[in-house]
Amino acid sequence: MQRRDFLKKAGLGAAAAAAATLVGAPKARAAKAEITWKMVTTWPPKLPYLQTGVERFAKRVEEMSGGRFKIRVYAAGELVPAMGAFEAVGNGTVEAGSGAAYYWAGKSQAAQWFAAVPFGLNPAGISSWLWGGNGLKLWEEVYAPFNLVPRPLGNTGVQMAGWFNRKIEKIEDFQGLKMRIPGLGGKVLAKAGVTVTLTPGGEIFTNLERGVIDATEWVGPLHDKLLGLHKVAKYYYYPGWHEPGTVLEAFFNKKAYEALPAEFKAIIDVACTETYTWMISGTDAENGAALLELIEKHKVQVLPLPGPVMDKLKVYSKEVLDEITAADPIAKKVHDDFSKFQKQIGTWATVADKACPRR
Amino acid sequence: MQRRDFLKKAGLGAAAAAAATLVGAPKARAAKAEITWKMVTTWPPKLPYLQTGVERFAKRVEEMSGGRFKIRVYAAGELVPAMGAFEAVGNGTVEAGSGAAYYWAGKSQAAQWFAAVPFGLNPAGISSWLWGGNGLKLWEEVYAPFNLVPRPLGNTGVQMAGWFNRKIEKIEDFQGLKMRIPGLGGKVLAKAGVTVTLTPGGEIFTNLERGVIDATEWVGPLHDKLLGLHKVAKYYYYPGWHEPGTVLEAFFNKKAYEALPAEFKAIIDVACTETYTWMISGTDAENGAALLELIEKHKVQVLPLPGPVMDKLKVYSKEVLDEITAADPIAKKVHDDFSKFQKQIGTWATVADKACPRR
Repeated sequence: MQRRDFLKKAGLGAAAAAAATLVGAPKARAAKAEITWKMVTTWPPKLPYLQTGVERFAKRVEEMSGGRFKIRVYAAGELVPAMGAFEAVGNGTVEAGSGAAYYWAGKSQAAQWFAAVPFGLNPAGISSWLWGGNGLKLWEEVYAPFNLVPRPLGNTGVQMAGWFNRKIEKIEDFQGLKMRIPGLGGKVLAKAGVTVTLTPGGEIFTNLERGVIDATEWVGPLHDKLLGLHKVAKYYYYPGWHEPGTVLEAFFNKKAYEALPAEFKAIIDVACTETYTWMISGTDAENGAALLELIEKHKVQVLPLPGPVMDKLKVYSKEVLDEITAADPIAKKVHDDFSKFQKQIGTWATVADKACPRR
Repeated sequence: MQRRDFLKKAGLGAAAAAAATLVGAPKARAAKAEITWKMVTTWPPKLPYLQTGVERFAKRVEEMSGGRFKIRVYAAGELVPAMGAFEAVGNGTVEAGSGAAYYWAGKSQAAQWFAAVPFGLNPAGISSWLWGGNGLKLWEEVYAPFNLVPRPLGNTGVQMAGWFNRKIEKIEDFQGLKMRIPGLGGKVLAKAGVTVTLTPGGEIFTNLERGVIDATEWVGPLHDKLLGLHKVAKYYYYPGWHEPGTVLEAFFNKKAYEALPAEFKAIIDVACTETYTWMISGTDAENGAALLELIEKHKVQVLPLPGPVMDKLKVYSKEVLDEITAADPIAKKVHDDFSKFQKQIGTWATVADKACPRR
């Protein structure tokens, strides 16, 4: 979805509160904090999983350190603007931040592979690249010049292709459509004749209702339902070819991270990974329930993008990625490793997960 | 695979050593341990991921506690026999253990759902049930009467259906086959006319080579290749319908766990989840590479079980699970929740992961 905008929609409070209780109340502790950090995010307050996940991470760090290491979390705009987080942490204004790596494409094109690229790896695949391949190592390399240490903090799963009021039966049906779709997905659809808009999250519903835009993507069934998109669009297309397993990140000021005692470094690293697993597990479960509700209760038509449409989008995606990697050697290095891994794991995914009769 | 037997095959040393270096050497610390636990496993020494994962978990606990909490890991047979781990931890002989929950079916039939059941959830699905659904809560309930607190510690991914020297083109082709396949998978294949054997891991290769058995399953491409099964069988079938995403476990003596300071409890919980994610990421990556090597270098024929065969196995699987749940109310309670979750997430998995063009 690329969430560089605030979600001002009501109705998020309850879900966020429910998510926040999953960890349980932290035990009251008398220990005085030895270290207190500030962590700035790119998310609106209470956004389920994205912002509540960061808060959960901070709580885990406090619990595991017995209250000796505290991280105070600030939503976007509370200390620095959403898109200022990367720089604020890099220059040491605050020690930690959270976002999605494709937000920083303007700093480094290579960053995008650590969040999501069109026709890239799904959540299981990208986790495997990050921890079982060279992914995290390359990510550290890409962020090092910005004085940042990155860690995967979450994954919101495969996205949906978006909400439409017109059927997409052939690639030409995209022609002339005004669609909200940011980032690389937008560049790909522009090649198919879409007029791409970057409507902020808080305005999507109204703009779609009033016909300012014809179509939009957002995140997945859970977050899309909270935004009420099923009330203003008829067709819900899948799969999210443009973001097949979006990774969310924590990043830490390199000097601050390296100055930590070894035990606090380990606590941060391990807590990030645990929040990652909690997030993909929780969003998968809630996306499943939300999708059924959209279909059964709200009678949304959930449709697959036809094979030939997907094939064409894949061709355009390759063009977009080729243009980027031709101009940027670091992006090319990351892309080459990512693609090699995608091939390494592709056959296995086909005979394993995809061949299993159902999840 | 059900690894209740020792793997005595050579050649595991290097892979285990490589896995062990992933965390890096722990920093030397002067801190005196406040708590020292023993952890007994059901695995042979150095078995990649299964045993090395337990060692990795213990190292993480030590790192995060600054050396104040140490867990000494013992492979199967070093302190207690593999299948004695559950009881040794329950009665407080040692504080912690590791295995796979289906090993304890003799204690509680319900335990099997927390490891793998035929036509059950894949790794992403079962993670989601455990942390985003009622899975872990139910698991705690099932283990409580045995004075144990369970935690998911790993996942070795979707298994393969097994190695055969005869093609499986229809369900009747199983008739009269002597196959090594333990647990519920064995019960299902027995209904198809298979003579089921429980050949220990260390004897599979020789027995298959000498024709004592006609077919076998083990774990997945990585572990199967280490065992050398491609040298004694022609056809490698998929998918692992009998174990579509096997969860490995840690379990702790309830009294010992509850007596821990809050910070050490949190450290244990978070370290288990982090090892889980490291394990599924690593095995997925290595299974991908191993499968390609089996196909490209060793010319193994990798074949899908035909749809009608899968359909029939599914019918038999339902019979086996129905028989168990009819006789055991706790197993029925767990099965009902598991099945409900499988439905909740099934549509989502179809439109998300399965619809994505490739991993």
